[in-house]
Order: sequence, then structure tokens, then C-alpha cells
Amino acid sequence: MNPTEIIRKKRNGSKLNRAEIEYLVNGYLKGNVSDYQMSAFLMAVYFQKMDFEETTMLPDIMIHSGTVVDLSTIPGIKVDKHSTGGVGDKVSLILAPMVAACGVPVPMISGRGLGHTGGTLDKLESIPGFRTDLSLVEYKKVIEKIGLVMIGQTNEIAPADKKMYALRDVTGTVECIPLIAGSIMSKKIAEGIDALVLDVKTGRGAFMQSESDAIELARMLIEVGKNFGKKTIGFLTDMSQPLGYAVGNWLEVVESIECLQGKNIPDLMEVTLVLGGAMVWMGGKAKSLEAGIFECRSALKSGKAWEKFLELVKAQGGDMSYLQNPRKYPRCKYSKEIKSTSSGDIDNIDALEVGFVNIMLGAGRMKVDDIIDPKAGISLCKKVGDSVSIGEVLAVIYADRQASLEIASHRLERAFSVATEPSVSSPLIHAMIDDQGVHSWHPCV
Amino acid sequence: MNPTEIIRKKRNGSKLNRAEIEYLVNGYLKGNVSDYQMSAFLMAVYFQKMDFEETTMLPDIMIHSGTVVDLSTIPGIKVDKHSTGGVGDKVSLILAPMVAACGVPVPMISGRGLGHTGGTLDKLESIPGFRTDLSLVEYKKVIEKIGLVMIGQTNEIAPADKKMYALRDVTGTVECIPLIAGSIMSKKIAEGIDALVLDVKTGRGAFMQSESDAIELARMLIEVGKNFGKKTIGFLTDMSQPLGYAVGNWLEVVESIECLQGKNIPDLMEVTLVLGGAMVWMGGKAKSLEAGIFECRSALKSGKAWEKFLELVKAQGGDMSYLQNPRKYPRCKYSKEIKSTSSGDIDNIDALEVGFVNIMLGAGRMKVDDIIDPKAGISLCKKVGDSVSIGEVLAVIYADRQASLEIASHRLERAFSVATEPSVSSPLIHAMIDDQGVHSWHPCV
Repeated sequence: MNPTEIIRKKRNGSKLNRAEIEYLVNGYLKGNVSDYQMSAFLMAVYFQKMDFEETTMLPDIMIHSGTVVDLSTIPGIKVDKHSTGGVGDKVSLILAPMVAACGVPVPMISGRGLGHTGGTLDKLESIPGFRTDLSLVEYKKVIEKIGLVMIGQTNEIAPADKKMYALRDVTGTVECIPLIAGSIMSKKIAEGIDALVLDVKTGRGAFMQSESDAIELARMLIEVGKNFGKKTIGFLTDMSQPLGYAVGNWLEVVESIECLQGKNIPDLMEVTLVLGGAMVWMGGKAKSLEAGIFECRSALKSGKAWEKFLELVKAQGGDMSYLQNPRKYPRCKYSKEIKSTSSGDIDNIDALEVGFVNIMLGAGRMKVDDIIDPKAGISLCKKVGDSVSIGEVLAVIYADRQASLEIASHRLERAFSVATEPSVSSPLIHAMIDDQGVHSWHPCV
Repeated sequence: MNPTEIIRKKRNGSKLNRAEIEYLVNGYLKGNVSDYQMSAFLMAVYFQKMDFEETTMLPDIMIHSGTVVDLSTIPGIKVDKHSTGGVGDKVSLILAPMVAACGVPVPMISGRGLGHTGGTLDKLESIPGFRTDLSLVEYKKVIEKIGLVMIGQTNEIAPADKKMYALRDVTGTVECIPLIAGSIMSKKIAEGIDALVLDVKTGRGAFMQSESDAIELARMLIEVGKNFGKKTIGFLTDMSQPLGYAVGNWLEVVESIECLQGKNIPDLMEVTLVLGGAMVWMGGKAKSLEAGIFECRSALKSGKAWEKFLELVKAQGGDMSYLQNPRKYPRCKYSKEIKSTSSGDIDNIDALEVGFVNIMLGAGRMKVDDIIDPKAGISLCKKVGDSVSIGEVLAVIYADRQASLEIASHRLERAFSVATEPSVSSPLIHAMIDDQGVHSWHPCV
């Protein structure tokens, strides 16, 4: 077999067979297929797409390029959540301990923030000492012990995906549904789950800005999951404005701690409870989604979710003192208030722009090897629907670099749009999607 | 500037500006843009194309990545020919000395055979001792002395094109009009020409199999040439069956010698005389295309074309004794006759298949570093329109590897198609194309 011939075949719009995809993916991992051939192939897939059969073969081949973790010795239905990425999306930090506190084991392998979106790993690592680089042996021990573990992709988990993802990131081939589906599902299935809940974001701050693309991705992910015998359901959620008030790694940990301790931040907690409720339901610890949500609320109210989070941080080496006293955490050298220049109701906060401002402040990365500042970020003071007067503070930004402060503040100010007439806000959860199709959603939180 | 952003911009169908193309092309040559980013970019261009302005910027940038040869001290209008590649296409070997013998200086930089097509360099190098790797100083000396020089692309001539072409070859991004146009024109303009004649092949054995693609390429090449102040005209010629009877490097040199010594092989000589006539006309040594063809015929008849070829071989270090006595040349270990299994008129000889059989025999290469056997190849005994009886020899194949002989002979036999009813052969020269448009062609040879 010849890599160039396979690239040409996909380029010309033909369907590839398993042997061909295997040759490319495994050959790339072994070094027989060069990175420049793989990147040309990925770009050809971007344009010619893959059909369902190819899209299912891809994660299967990537999974078998490494280890599939066997969690069958751990009792219960193991359920994970995956978000396609957003701004201020700290849902995993609250949801994972909350669901684990309901008795559903949560083995979670997360990614880093890239582009305008944040990443669960970066947020966890802002807790001094917290280790996300556990070995698979340690990973299994932690979930065995506390019913919850949160790590990053190891070299053993779908290594072909890891290598291909790094390449996609620098070759403009990220936004491609079959490649996204392959990448997500290979990691999730290799981590040893039984079921999966998807948070597919849509809107300005999402990778899939259009709802139709988001639905297409969700349906593909669900079908692939089903094909591997993993029950998968998805929720289409809004990412036009950031979720919650905090954007930036440690700032988001603090907001998560507050929520775990009982604070209600409406949009953040609605998404968290619905996704968490679905996990509890799928994990067999509730008879319906609504009952699952009830269990989650109880775990928050009783303090069990917060306790589970503390257990997690302890088990993975984090310094507990910062959780007990977040004010102890180092502060940024500079902060700046962004004030409104008009009066009215806020009808939009551009999440994509907020994400880019966050990078400027040092809290995100554009390249894989950029170093991030865990302290930096944005505290929103207003959200969509809030009314505001001239001179009122819209947000506060934090950074160690004074130079970026001016541009960042101008750009953030423009991310807010104020309407003089009352506006209708878009729903937070657009739909639920399962293997039967797309179901309209009526708020139940 | 960020290479990933430029890739994404082209991927999304936007037009690139000069700074962006420059950043990628020069960055790739310097190593700031990686090969995997360049290959993703090339695949994006394959799908999203380039407009005329981008297609003109590309060769300009590639030309200025190296040296532009100054041949202005050499009197006369320097004219070259370029063929988009075919099977049995030994036109350059006859045409270049023929045109030079008419007093038009011919500076020719050619390529190697790749895929199913042959390359002028490989044919010339089958002459023992013939050097195609002259330095640019030697190149200039040879054309100054004898009015003709034939070399390969040096590291000084459009080095960015050289590096990009090698990458395209292994990443399935060869068949792309703006990239082909950029690659051809950068080399041709850098070699120091004043005018250019194009032989744009169409049909099964051509890279541009459809006539409309071939016309699009021709028009793009002509426009780019015009933009650089180089008068360029093109001929659309048939490559459905091989040109002439010989396919394979030394076999083609022998056929070229025979033609230079006066033999008339109708299809081969029609193309050679029309292209050569156009060069003599554009080189100012004839008042019309027809007059140019007359001059070429005279140069053949008088023996001046053959003498010029001998001068060329001598000037570039070739062993003259093989030209004077081609039978002295080593022979392949094995040969095999392909016999017809039916009677009738040959209505097709699939040039693409003949090209692939030629590779199997060792006479071509699939990868840039494949070593070719100059002795190997195919001698056709019949051409389209010839009648044939059962058992009559259609072709003879030559190879050193016995193993490939059987499969090659079966495959070659199937490349011939015999019709029981007389068929109408397609015209050899389909059209002439200049900056005014496409002109229908009436045979004038």
C-alpha cells in the first residue's frame, strides 16, 4: 500500500476501506507515514468528509493503537461527560464530584484549553500540586478508591489520536466532524466507560458555531458510541455568552468551589445539573433524568459533592489549603475594571471575543507549548439580560502583563452589546439528542 | 503571521494576499513553515483553488526564491518548449536541436519522469556520460557556444518550487492547476527565456485527462507568461495513445535519432514540427507558423538538426559513439513479444496503461528516489488505425527482471483495443491557444 495513493483516493471523494485507514493511522504512529502525508490526508478528509462507516473505523483503529482500560472490576456503570469546548465552561469541575457523590463512578480524561476555549486540565492544574499526569495504574487506583478520577490523555490512551490531534491543531484541520468524532470517541472509549453524556456547544464561542453542524456532530458521536456498545446521549447547549461569571483557570476553580458549596449561578448550574442528572440516570442511580437531577441537587445540598471534590484533590496530590482558603492564592499584578459606556439591557456578550481576550491576558494558549498564567482571567459582573448604567462595571480583568491590559480592556468592552430595548434571550439548552433523534427541550431545572 | 491561520484562510475559500503567500513559500524554504503545514496548505489549494492574481504571485515568489538567469548577453530571442507530460513523448529531444539549428537559442530546463509519464532528463541521461546537472555558469556557457542547452532544475533555479514539487508528489497534490502553473512558469521564467511554447496534453495518458481542464491550464499558463512579459502560446495535443513507437528512455533516444536523421514517424513528427515551427516563428526566424515549420523541415533535411544534437551531446559530456552506433548499447536480459488475440483495426492504445507497464519493466519511477533502467521499455509495432491479424506482434517489451515480464505483457495486451469496424481516429492537435483564446486547428504539416 502507498500513502500517496490513499491520500489521492480520499481527495477524489472515494470511500476508504479499513485496511487503508489502518495503514495511514498506524503507519503514522510508527513513522512509516510521514507527518506531511498525514496532514495532506487530514485536509482531504476536511473537504471530502468520511461516511459513517469510515468515521466508526477511525476511532476503533485509534483505540487499538494503545491500551483500552479495563474498569470492569469496579462495580457500577461508569459514566463520563464530554464537552466540545467553550468559554467559562467549568462544568466538569462541579459535575464530576457531584455525580460521583451520587454513586456513579466517573472516569474522566480531559484535554487542555486550545484556541479561545478553556480546558479542564489547565483548571485542575491551577490547584497547586494537583497531578493530572497519573499513570493508568494510578488512574485505576484512584477511581477504585473514591469513584472519581480526572486526568489528561496518557501516552497509552489512543496514542494515534494524540499524535494526530497535535498535527491537526497546527494544520488547520481541527473543524472537521469525522475527525472530531474519531478523536473524542477514541479517548472516551479507551478510558473504560460504559456510557457517555455529551455537551455539544453551539453559538459564537463554540467550535461548531452553527446549530446544524453541532447537531450533525452530536448525531455522529452518538452513533459511534452506540456502535461500540456505549450508551451515549447529548445536549445541545448555548455558548453565545460565557458560562457563569469566571473565565480563567483559577478564577473558574473558585467559582466551581462556590457552586459545590451551594451557590446558584443560574446558567452554569442549569447545564451542570442537566448533564449531571443525565449521568446519574444513565449510571442507574435514578429512574429518570428528572430524578437524576434531584439526586444531584441533594448531593450538592448535603455537602457530599464538595466532599468528593476535596477527596479528588487530595487523591491527586493537590494542596487542600487553597481550596479551604482561596484568598491565599497569589494574585495578578494588575487588574482593570471595564465600564459600560451606555445604558440599557445587555443583549450579548461575545463568548469568542471573551475567549480571545482571556488568551491576551495570559490565561489561554494559541500554541500547544504556550505557558499559561493560572491567575489571569476575567470576572464578568454582568450577564446577558442584566441592565446596566453608564459607568457601571461590566467586568474586571486580571493579568501580570501590563502591556496587554489596555488592548484587552478595549476589546472586552466591545464584546458587550447593550440594547436600549428589552431583548429576548436565547434558551440555554436547545435540545436533547439520542439515537432516536433530536428532541426539543423544556427547562426542568 | 501564523502559518495555521493562512492555511485556514485558504481552506475557508478566501483569497490570500502577497504577504501571506510569501510568508508560506519563503518560510517553507527557510524551514520556518513545516512540511506538514505546507502539505496541508497545498491540499487546501487543491480544493479551494487560487484566482488569477494568486496564481501569478505564486511563480513570482518562487522565482525570487532563487536566481533568475540573465541570458540578455546572448543574441536572439530565447524560446523554450514545455510539455505537461505524456507517454512516449520524446519531442524535446528532436525539437530542441531542430529549432536551435534554425538559429533560435533554446535554453531548456526539464524534469524527470514521474508516475506514468516519462521525463526528458531521464532520456538524455540514458546516453552514457551525458550530464544534465550543469551549474548555471556551465549552462550559460553551453548555450552561448552552441545555441542550445538541456539541463535539470538546479538548486539555484526556483528552489522553493523544487522543494514544493517534491512535497506535492508524495502528498497527492500534483493535479492542481494553479500549483502546476506556478511550478512550470517559475522554472521557465527563471531559466532566462523570452518566449515559450506549451504542449498541453489531453487524453488518458495526460495529467489533465479532460480537454476542459487542459484548456484551463493552458489559458492560465499563457496569462501568467503574459504577465511576466513572456510571449506564450500553447497547443492542445492528444495523449490518448503513446507518441511514436518507442516508450522507455534509451529506446526513445534511438527513435529520436532516427527522426533527426530524417525518418518520418507521423504523429511524433507532426507534433514536433508544429511546436518547433511555432518556436522558430516566435524566435523571429520565420514570418509565420507555417514558415517556421518549413524552416524546421529544412533543418532536418539538411542534417543540421542532427549535427546540433551531436554538438549538444558532446558539449554536455555524452559518449558520441553510442549515437553513431546505437546497437553498441547494452540490451535487456529479457524481451517478450505481445501478440494480438483478435483481428481488426486498432482503435485505441491506452497511453496511461502503457505508462504503467513501462514502470513495471523498470523504465519509470513511482517514487522520486526509484532507480530506473535506461534499457527497459516498450517498442510498439502497431498504432491506432493499423489493422492487425490474430497472432501478429503488437509490441515487444524489454526488461532485466523476468518476474515482471508476465504481468506486464498481459497488462500491455489489454491496453490495445481492436475494433472489427473501421474507427475514426481523433485529431492529433486539437487546438492552438494564445492570449486571444482557443483557436481550432487545421493540420498544416
